[in-house]
Amino acid sequence: MVSINRRVVLSGLAMLPALSSTLLPGAALAQAPGGVLPSWNDGLAKQSILEFVRATTDQSRPTYVSPEERIAVFDQDGTLWVEHPMYTQVVYCLEHVPAVVEKRPELKDVEPFKTVLSGNREAMARLSMRDLEEILAATLTGMSVDEFNAEVKKWLATAKHPRWGLHYTELVYQPMLEVLRHLRDNGFKTYIVTGGGQDFVRVYAQQVYGIPPEQVVGTMGGTKYGYEDGRPFLTKEPKLLLNDDKAGKPEGIHLMIGRRPSIAFGNSTGDREMLEWTGAGTGARLMMLLLHDDPMREYAYGPAQGLPESKVGTFTQALYDEAKQKGWVVISMKNDWNEVFPPTTVGRTTR
Amino acid sequence: MVSINRRVVLSGLAMLPALSSTLLPGAALAQAPGGVLPSWNDGLAKQSILEFVRATTDQSRPTYVSPEERIAVFDQDGTLWVEHPMYTQVVYCLEHVPAVVEKRPELKDVEPFKTVLSGNREAMARLSMRDLEEILAATLTGMSVDEFNAEVKKWLATAKHPRWGLHYTELVYQPMLEVLRHLRDNGFKTYIVTGGGQDFVRVYAQQVYGIPPEQVVGTMGGTKYGYEDGRPFLTKEPKLLLNDDKAGKPEGIHLMIGRRPSIAFGNSTGDREMLEWTGAGTGARLMMLLLHDDPMREYAYGPAQGLPESKVGTFTQALYDEAKQKGWVVISMKNDWNEVFPPTTVGRTTR
Repeated sequence: MVSINRRVVLSGLAMLPALSSTLLPGAALAQAPGGVLPSWNDGLAKQSILEFVRATTDQSRPTYVSPEERIAVFDQDGTLWVEHPMYTQVVYCLEHVPAVVEKRPELKDVEPFKTVLSGNREAMARLSMRDLEEILAATLTGMSVDEFNAEVKKWLATAKHPRWGLHYTELVYQPMLEVLRHLRDNGFKTYIVTGGGQDFVRVYAQQVYGIPPEQVVGTMGGTKYGYEDGRPFLTKEPKLLLNDDKAGKPEGIHLMIGRRPSIAFGNSTGDREMLEWTGAGTGARLMMLLLHDDPMREYAYGPAQGLPESKVGTFTQALYDEAKQKGWVVISMKNDWNEVFPPTTVGRTTR
Repeated sequence: MVSINRRVVLSGLAMLPALSSTLLPGAALAQAPGGVLPSWNDGLAKQSILEFVRATTDQSRPTYVSPEERIAVFDQDGTLWVEHPMYTQVVYCLEHVPAVVEKRPELKDVEPFKTVLSGNREAMARLSMRDLEEILAATLTGMSVDEFNAEVKKWLATAKHPRWGLHYTELVYQPMLEVLRHLRDNGFKTYIVTGGGQDFVRVYAQQVYGIPPEQVVGTMGGTKYGYEDGRPFLTKEPKLLLNDDKAGKPEGIHLMIGRRPSIAFGNSTGDREMLEWTGAGTGARLMMLLLHDDPMREYAYGPAQGLPESKVGTFTQALYDEAKQKGWVVISMKNDWNEVFPPTTVGRTTR
């Protein structure tokens, strides 16, 4: 039901907190300070964004784009918020296993649920891709759309990231929030195009990014219309409609938007085809890749980090080479950003 | 690939012109005259629309809806434009068979293509549902998204409706264009939710209805990402993702919009679940059904027309009864509309 990379998923298991969550106030809304892109240092990345907006909104220029054609797309995991040590949605699924077992006690002694319930990190790290898919299906489907929304909302209000002790929805990149705002201020429709579950991301996208549910494109599952006491409801089905990753991203963009974007942001090989598709259009184009090269403030897992191959994330050398060859702009988190997280998080990390 | 009703499809065959089209200027843009709903006669239907808009946009009322929650959905065939004697998209598919056979000559002597090419109406009326699906698959898939758009656009610019001799895109209902505009003027996002092909309707929805491609929800097929000379393109695949009809309409609304509409318009049993889903939300609701009871200006095929059962359209007595029981408002084309088609069409019918 959701696009996952087994290595990325499992490598983070050891760093996760126990399967419990504490009741704490909801995530603070991320807010950008005044001015345009204040968290960006001057440089090619910042200038590319500002120039792209000028080129597409100045009617006197041949690169002008009419307002209804202004479509901007953003990957989420690793582009708008932290994706390490594990995709947030996968953390949700693992932590939601106890609730599923409570409703379906027959799963208690059945693998892979038994292993997840054991809390044994080493055993969990040995789960197969098929096991993970079973966990995702059990925790993301089989309930009504309304129930799912309520469960995710409740979890997000309490769960914390193991490194910073902050809500996942607080660990969004302040410079990217500023880009979203700057584009919207200039008439662009901003879309998330994520390998994560469309319904999952929709739960918080408006509050966290200012992006409404209809502008979230993600991995899509089917639903089934039915009645309870004469009242209609939709049940989330374990039926994959589209895996919104890699080639699935331009396919998802066509399905959900029906127009080609003119600006696209990503950070991994999962975003390659989306950037290619965006770049193949006519007129002004801007394709950007966020390089995680900042282990002090966030993480470093790009191709140039000198890490052994197995620790290198999905921003591969091949992607780096394609970016260079095609003129995609690489954003260095370390050099291009003077802030990483929203001001509301400053001084609040608990670990 | 598209939701079709065999009876509706085939009953119209005899009334179609020959498989040819003449070169004529493109469809005129439909424009509503000034004022609110001028083509609507005073009555329950008009008052229901005006009152719904007041109730949802007046901040002092408990029924106020915040702007981002203002979602309006409209069926297309028979609700926004003429669906008789045959769905326009099916006419396109049949008329496009010669072009397909030109590219794939091996189909020339193969059924059902041979029958369509023969132009023999009686033989065509005997085509099975499976035959029709084969024709739809051959004419709606297998080409790039860009090729498909260009072919539909070209066809729409020349094809004419057999009764009026006007372009199909001119045969839209002026009163409904006024409703679309009134809702948009009051902050509603207007969506088409059609059993027709999503990609087909997107070709003209902006020009004809002022509805952008990302706000067209229809029957959805998969696409496949590929390269030609290093340049990426999307091919339309014969893979059905969602049949956006009946229960598929609320499912499609969830998939594409992710919010529940508060106002919905339809005209047939294909819209029943969409109206139920809309009606099951909280706050101000308005569900409307267009009754075709105007054989002079358009057609009459509702339940109360006294036509033999086989000639009755998909606005059944059961739907009429459900509408009455649930407070859905029935629009009488004959009594509620003082105009049916846009002013640009007046005096231009050629037959």
